[in-house]
Amino acid sequence: MIRFENDYAEGAHPQILQRLVATNEEQSPGYGMDEHSEKARAYIKKAIAAEQADIHFLVGGTQTNTTVIASILRPHQGVIAASTGHIAVHETGAIEATGHKVLTLSSDDGKLTAAQVKACYDAHWQDSTHEHMVQPGLVYISHPTENGTTYSKAELTALREVCRDCDLPLFIDGARLGYGLVAQDSDLSLADIAKLCDVFYIGGTKMGALFGEAVVIVNPAYQKDFRYMIKQRGGLLAKGRLLGIQFETLFEDTLYMDISHHAVDMAMLIRQAFLDKGFAMRYDSKTNQQFPILPNHLLRSLEEKYSFSIWEAYDDTHTVVRFCTSWATTKENVDRLIDDIHQLV
Amino acid sequence: MIRFENDYAEGAHPQILQRLVATNEEQSPGYGMDEHSEKARAYIKKAIAAEQADIHFLVGGTQTNTTVIASILRPHQGVIAASTGHIAVHETGAIEATGHKVLTLSSDDGKLTAAQVKACYDAHWQDSTHEHMVQPGLVYISHPTENGTTYSKAELTALREVCRDCDLPLFIDGARLGYGLVAQDSDLSLADIAKLCDVFYIGGTKMGALFGEAVVIVNPAYQKDFRYMIKQRGGLLAKGRLLGIQFETLFEDTLYMDISHHAVDMAMLIRQAFLDKGFAMRYDSKTNQQFPILPNHLLRSLEEKYSFSIWEAYDDTHTVVRFCTSWATTKENVDRLIDDIHQLV
Amino acid sequence: MIRFENDYAEGAHPQILQRLVATNEEQSPGYGMDEHSEKARAYIKKAIAAEQADIHFLVGGTQTNTTVIASILRPHQGVIAASTGHIAVHETGAIEATGHKVLTLSSDDGKLTAAQVKACYDAHWQDSTHEHMVQPGLVYISHPTENGTTYSKAELTALREVCRDCDLPLFIDGARLGYGLVAQDSDLSLADIAKLCDVFYIGGTKMGALFGEAVVIVNPAYQKDFRYMIKQRGGLLAKGRLLGIQFETLFEDTLYMDISHHAVDMAMLIRQAFLDKGFAMRYDSKTNQQFPILPNHLLRSLEEKYSFSIWEAYDDTHTVVRFCTSWATTKENVDRLIDDIHQLV
Amino acid sequence: MIRFENDYAEGAHPQILQRLVATNEEQSPGYGMDEHSEKARAYIKKAIAAEQADIHFLVGGTQTNTTVIASILRPHQGVIAASTGHIAVHETGAIEATGHKVLTLSSDDGKLTAAQVKACYDAHWQDSTHEHMVQPGLVYISHPTENGTTYSKAELTALREVCRDCDLPLFIDGARLGYGLVAQDSDLSLADIAKLCDVFYIGGTKMGALFGEAVVIVNPAYQKDFRYMIKQRGGLLAKGRLLGIQFETLFEDTLYMDISHHAVDMAMLIRQAFLDKGFAMRYDSKTNQQFPILPNHLLRSLEEKYSFSIWEAYDDTHTVVRFCTSWATTKENVDRLIDDIHQLV
Repeated sequence: MIRFENDYAEGAHPQILQRLVATNEEQSPGYGMDEHSEKARAYIKKAIAAEQADIHFLVGGTQTNTTVIASILRPHQGVIAASTGHIAVHETGAIEATGHKVLTLSSDDGKLTAAQVKACYDAHWQDSTHEHMVQPGLVYISHPTENGTTYSKAELTALREVCRDCDLPLFIDGARLGYGLVAQDSDLSLADIAKLCDVFYIGGTKMGALFGEAVVIVNPAYQKDFRYMIKQRGGLLAKGRLLGIQFETLFEDTLYMDISHHAVDMAMLIRQAFLDKGFAMRYDSKTNQQFPILPNHLLRSLEEKYSFSIWEAYDDTHTVVRFCTSWATTKENVDRLIDDIHQLV
Repeated sequence: MIRFENDYAEGAHPQILQRLVATNEEQSPGYGMDEHSEKARAYIKKAIAAEQADIHFLVGGTQTNTTVIASILRPHQGVIAASTGHIAVHETGAIEATGHKVLTLSSDDGKLTAAQVKACYDAHWQDSTHEHMVQPGLVYISHPTENGTTYSKAELTALREVCRDCDLPLFIDGARLGYGLVAQDSDLSLADIAKLCDVFYIGGTKMGALFGEAVVIVNPAYQKDFRYMIKQRGGLLAKGRLLGIQFETLFEDTLYMDISHHAVDMAMLIRQAFLDKGFAMRYDSKTNQQFPILPNHLLRSLEEKYSFSIWEAYDDTHTVVRFCTSWATTKENVDRLIDDIHQLV
Repeated sequence: MIRFENDYAEGAHPQILQRLVATNEEQSPGYGMDEHSEKARAYIKKAIAAEQADIHFLVGGTQTNTTVIASILRPHQGVIAASTGHIAVHETGAIEATGHKVLTLSSDDGKLTAAQVKACYDAHWQDSTHEHMVQPGLVYISHPTENGTTYSKAELTALREVCRDCDLPLFIDGARLGYGLVAQDSDLSLADIAKLCDVFYIGGTKMGALFGEAVVIVNPAYQKDFRYMIKQRGGLLAKGRLLGIQFETLFEDTLYMDISHHAVDMAMLIRQAFLDKGFAMRYDSKTNQQFPILPNHLLRSLEEKYSFSIWEAYDDTHTVVRFCTSWATTKENVDRLIDDIHQLV
Repeated sequence: MIRFENDYAEGAHPQILQRLVATNEEQSPGYGMDEHSEKARAYIKKAIAAEQADIHFLVGGTQTNTTVIASILRPHQGVIAASTGHIAVHETGAIEATGHKVLTLSSDDGKLTAAQVKACYDAHWQDSTHEHMVQPGLVYISHPTENGTTYSKAELTALREVCRDCDLPLFIDGARLGYGLVAQDSDLSLADIAKLCDVFYIGGTKMGALFGEAVVIVNPAYQKDFRYMIKQRGGLLAKGRLLGIQFETLFEDTLYMDISHHAVDMAMLIRQAFLDKGFAMRYDSKTNQQFPILPNHLLRSLEEKYSFSIWEAYDDTHTVVRFCTSWATTKENVDRLIDDIHQLV
């Protein structure tokens, strides 16, 4: 069985693991106050060209989303998200568990538009009973989205401007940020991301780390007391150095982008194979997730050799499935898959 | 600088790290459904002699305490804890953040007595205005406690019986469980722990793992839907195998107890050195944490070579400090410390 | 200005006020333990033919919904509601503030069908990642709905059966219950309501009381410790007698139903006037709320003499508005309105 | 049975009830936007000499405390209160239910000192692990306290200054505010209260209203969006006019202070009777609550004719009890009680 079902099926990129081994005997203070974490923060600040940013390392994505969102909102406020957003559908109500509603806006491709945010904001404030409704207090987007789509610089800039006009901070979930940055259809750099939002995070778990997400609080208005929040939400790792070492390795050189490129290159090969064979894609993803629409009778033969995700029923006879690549995806396995795609009847 | 300030200053026990390296390329399903997690669960069930138990792996202690406690309590209930309990003082209000009060009972050594719990229960139910107060809904204890003290089998049995009489589930925080099990003043085995409570956890982070805590839900009444809770509280690690591999390594053989013995042996040497020199201990700990009361003027010379924690002011001229040992504490470093203790004036 | 904008524009029905005056000097215990509250409970139990029920008096609707729902759900569960449900749109996220997601199902007329609930339940449990999603834990409906529509006995029975099959308790928001019970298109009696759900409430605020809602917990499984919940959510009125006296007055005789009949009779006259004039109704309401679709250019002339609610834009040239009646609506004012409707061009 | 057990045993002061009757048929907008509420706000602003203040009317005390406190605190912050404070002991964990810890400071008489607050603040910030602890974010005091004691202007000024230095807003629970203002041992006026805190509330329920508390947000920094908070916590009364009418009646003239004087005068007579007879008082209260320490064998004879609260056991043979007076306490009943006190053996 060759696994394409997600981007976290293996352990860590070998360079990260080596570094963990090499530093294992070092003694360091806990909770992210160690030298490796300091270095990782410095590398990231340089990469994003934002010296004023505060950077914190958390363990996982749900924890990160919850901690950031609950830190920013007041009790009567909710977070605007696409109806497909991770916080809206796949975190067991973690946001609501902190007291806040997720205000979902309909989205087919996983993206929000500036116009949608503006309309949601206006609808709230123009309603004479708005005090009886949850006030929009924050905008959450994912780049790339859960559907593999990405924002262009123009789109993100438009969102940013609407958010500023509406006094709504903008938070970007970057669980797969690298894959979005190298996608052909996005012209956004890491520094652009940092300029065009208030808070974002750089995913590690799905990008080659054992685990870990680097929260970047760009806007000083949201930096205060964030370490308390991490601790309260259970995200302050005792051996915080583990996070520091991993992000140090990812960012001291080009490893983070190398991993991103490799995974997306592999995904583009798979994509092309499906397209060549005449299968349409559910979403136009140029990132490491591919969503071909396959006839149900062909699923079984693929499932014998490969694991992939069943995404949703497309119609009575077709299913959307998901293939993911990662640092660990080998050219050899991709070639095998492509061969088998070509032989599908 | 030789660090005795905590039991999580290094990475992981080498056997654990080796195993992570050896399994790194394996592909496995996420979220704790992998084979290593399955094996770890099987080993632990055998070690605790409780086949009916449910076992889950979480990342850290605060997260674990929060998830377990919030899973059990109804909204109007609180958790009884010693005033020194970790959930009462050192988790940034994580329990309150889930809506529940920590009902603290005064404790000098970190332990709760059966009589205290009974008195608290009676005080609530005998008060005619009890509906205006938080109802005790759960008892939380730590073994060993945050002060290094331990429960005897008789003490824990008494607590257990009071809890049963009062219909109060009993939850044991075992962040340092191994150190408590091997302490000379505790006659409790791992199987005893499992028999004498409803839920407990076996700490990994402070016991040689990179991170990780194994929650054992012994009482089937509290098992339902616990994985939802873990996900909601941000504790469901995508690469759950990392937790499985670590606990598999700790429990497939005797590693967990070996680590416990080593650390406590080292601590007993340090303890004896302080006692020999005439320094009293703040708590009578037979575990890996030692709390000597030192004259303030002697602190400085120790601080030049060693890091340790300032616990609290004892009086105007004395301070309680904490020395911790772990799997990583070497006999060589302990001997150096002992030499220096002997030379304190 | 004659007000038809809501059903709480005046004080209380004169009989209620008289009783408050008559009993003002009496001394009684607080928090709902007084004799008037006892009598009110007894009258209601008789009216609903459910001796086993627990009855509690709370102050307002949002408070009641929040208290009931938070009392029943476990942390990972959400409440199913129509997308138009009061808890979903008009309570400033009060449910989310207790940690729970409102799982909305699309509804045009405000009602949920048994099939919708079943589909929602199945969708959850058939999804292999259901532990990453909020578990449906309760079904909330309003009778009559926020749109004035009602459930038939057959519809409610079907809902009830699906709920039982899915182990989902059913909670009915009866903020305007009386108006629904006397509607021509509902064949449900108060006793039917009590038989066909687990918890419901009998609204007072919108039914002639100064304020107050009577929660009826029919299913003993949800009765335990409910008074703690009321206190915690701020709903335990010190002078609880005020609630008791009001519900005593409403239920010792036929006042509650008399008020219901009067208001609905008045509403039917208004409805007929709009229909006669050729205006369609947005919802087919046989209750005290009427939702005519009016050409925008006619709104102004009505607004000069009458207050009513702007419900929503229907299209570019039409608006849905809401007219409400209550115990206080006089035939004289209704006749005036009807005359003016007839004269609209 | 003559009731002295609390200050909410009867309905409302007759003037308030009359006004509710007189205005019953008026039509008005809901949710506190009516003319009576506007007038009440204007009267109160004049009485407190603080035109910039925002004034809101809520239904009860627990609701008010919860709404104010949750509105001000960020998630990692707690509220400092006396160990005897109402929010700490008698609100079923309502504050914790909003996610915040009550940080209790020990108090025998119900008061906090400026020095205590400063020490608590310093202890937090001087602890190197403060991010692992709940951050003090607000100070809550009651005036008069739950024990009938009051702050002097000097004491409150000192508290205020410490709070300002520590950047801690100060919130005063005035459930019985009037009784404190007229107490002989307090030199504070209503205007002083408004000057010396950030938020306070003027109790109605225990001061002659049917129900209701007037929240005064003096500091503009805490005014934003407070109506959302009220709605979310279930405190936005549909017929908000009921609150407006009551506070209008209390404050348009001198009724609020008249009630305060009457009740305290009655209490002073009772107090003197106990003192004359040689009974000590548990707290030195000059307000409407009196706490005599009575020999247990005398309780029974008093209980035959009078209801009063059992406060706490004083020792094996004595009990602290509480007698309350209110607007409704008659001189005749007080005289009877005094006669009976004099005849106690």
